[in-house]
Amino acid sequence: MGGQIVECVPNVSEGRRSEVVDAIADAVRRTEGVRLLNVQSDASHNRSVITFAGPPAAAAEAAFALCARAVALVDMNEHRGEHPRLGAVDVVPFVPIAGVTMEEAVGLALALGARIWEVLRLPVYFYAQAARRPERVRLPDIRRGEYEGLRAKMADPAWAPDVGAATPHPTAGAVVVGARRPLIAYNINLTTADVGVAKKIARAVRESSGGLVGIQAMGVASAGGQAQISMNLLDVATTSMATAFEAVRREAQRLGAEIAESEIVGLVPLDALVDVARASLRLRSFERAQILETHLME
Amino acid sequence: MGGQIVECVPNVSEGRRSEVVDAIADAVRRTEGVRLLNVQSDASHNRSVITFAGPPAAAAEAAFALCARAVALVDMNEHRGEHPRLGAVDVVPFVPIAGVTMEEAVGLALALGARIWEVLRLPVYFYAQAARRPERVRLPDIRRGEYEGLRAKMADPAWAPDVGAATPHPTAGAVVVGARRPLIAYNINLTTADVGVAKKIARAVRESSGGLVGIQAMGVASAGGQAQISMNLLDVATTSMATAFEAVRREAQRLGAEIAESEIVGLVPLDALVDVARASLRLRSFERAQILETHLME
Repeated sequence: MGGQIVECVPNVSEGRRSEVVDAIADAVRRTEGVRLLNVQSDASHNRSVITFAGPPAAAAEAAFALCARAVALVDMNEHRGEHPRLGAVDVVPFVPIAGVTMEEAVGLALALGARIWEVLRLPVYFYAQAARRPERVRLPDIRRGEYEGLRAKMADPAWAPDVGAATPHPTAGAVVVGARRPLIAYNINLTTADVGVAKKIARAVRESSGGLVGIQAMGVASAGGQAQISMNLLDVATTSMATAFEAVRREAQRLGAEIAESEIVGLVPLDALVDVARASLRLRSFERAQILETHLME
Repeated sequence: MGGQIVECVPNVSEGRRSEVVDAIADAVRRTEGVRLLNVQSDASHNRSVITFAGPPAAAAEAAFALCARAVALVDMNEHRGEHPRLGAVDVVPFVPIAGVTMEEAVGLALALGARIWEVLRLPVYFYAQAARRPERVRLPDIRRGEYEGLRAKMADPAWAPDVGAATPHPTAGAVVVGARRPLIAYNINLTTADVGVAKKIARAVRESSGGLVGIQAMGVASAGGQAQISMNLLDVATTSMATAFEAVRREAQRLGAEIAESEIVGLVPLDALVDVARASLRLRSFERAQILETHLME
């Protein structure tokens, strides 16, 4: 894969019926020019993160095909899950990887949004770098009220969609489309089942309530029944996985809880892993070029 | 770089005069078909680790060119350094990476040894997988007595070289050539300058004195004047960098010392770094395919 590469990471509201997840991912597999990189389903969240990459036009085509398939197969009226969501395709972010500017990624998002409304009659919000209004930059703000509160939310002119009618799609709700820098979806499970503890820790570590730069966090229940701090790390150069882990560990300790394990959802840039090794081994002057494979893969 | 790849990691006894190190590395750069991957000099060890890779015939050619250059430029009678060594080119290991068997790597080592004696008149010992006698498998055993004790050692029939006369080369001593699996050269510096503490820790963690599987370790002084545990990790699948770090940390604590920092010398396989992240973040079900670059580099 050389030349222009954009990554796309749709989150769909199905994480239990593997044949449905497969069928949705298949829409990506069947699109020429893109490569399906990762499919990760969480039964407790009842949500799957599908990662693919390719040249901009092919990635946009695959994203549309995936949305069409998810709208056909997921009925939000029957959806229950730990993770907040607005619709069958909850969010579709484009991420510039190589030879693509953020402006081009925003252009892909806006064009996809127009096509989704035109063909699928699914109302669209634009977020992150593609947001049309400042109060729609953050995903949690758009998602507040969730699918169940969507009809009432859309009736408020302040929350009319960016494209489409101000009423939810009858089975698919609404979709949030945008462009953003790479992020890491990172979950930490506690040894306790007390979700209240996870919520307190999430509040303490996330940026929006005075925590660490670039951390979005919420407390939920994991698939194994453990309390989970489910995070997005938006700026790993500033707040690494190691820093997030340590912050959660400290807060947990203060509350008499402990970390059981953690989990990276979907893909992670190599540098983020190198940073973890650097921190935990206190590595001096380690360069990425010291990794054998960076040479052999060229 | 596709097809057959063998890595070669000569250690030469010069880590202070950068123009000499450059000239030695240049012998590799000028050899067609090989790629110079890394040059790392340590002033305190007065030693450089030069890593290159390529198809077997080209790698053997580059290794010979490097030996010839080092024999011409390094005079062991003037060499002082923290790290044990027998000669100007202290050790030349071949490491099979892709499409090359260990038997082929041993063949390269034996042929190189013959050529080194024939052309450079430098006596040769074979070690590791290329060892001709069981007591020559381990490098520390061959190196015992160092350059200064080499004349006396070689006079003992039990320590006659595998190729060449039983007297040291007048300026270059002897060379150890062999084939081995990949290893990680990994040093940990303490906050103390007391090398005695590092020696105690080295004894506690190394396999040969009852420590951890696959660890060779010695206590020396680092370039910054700190006490250093200088290690080779021969079997990271069993004893990872994280495990070695933790073992040293515990021993240090017992002796009232602390780890200041650590350092990977030369190259490290990606999996070894992933293992560190896995251990320190207690990662659940992380796969190498989740690293973005493993897809983009294909």
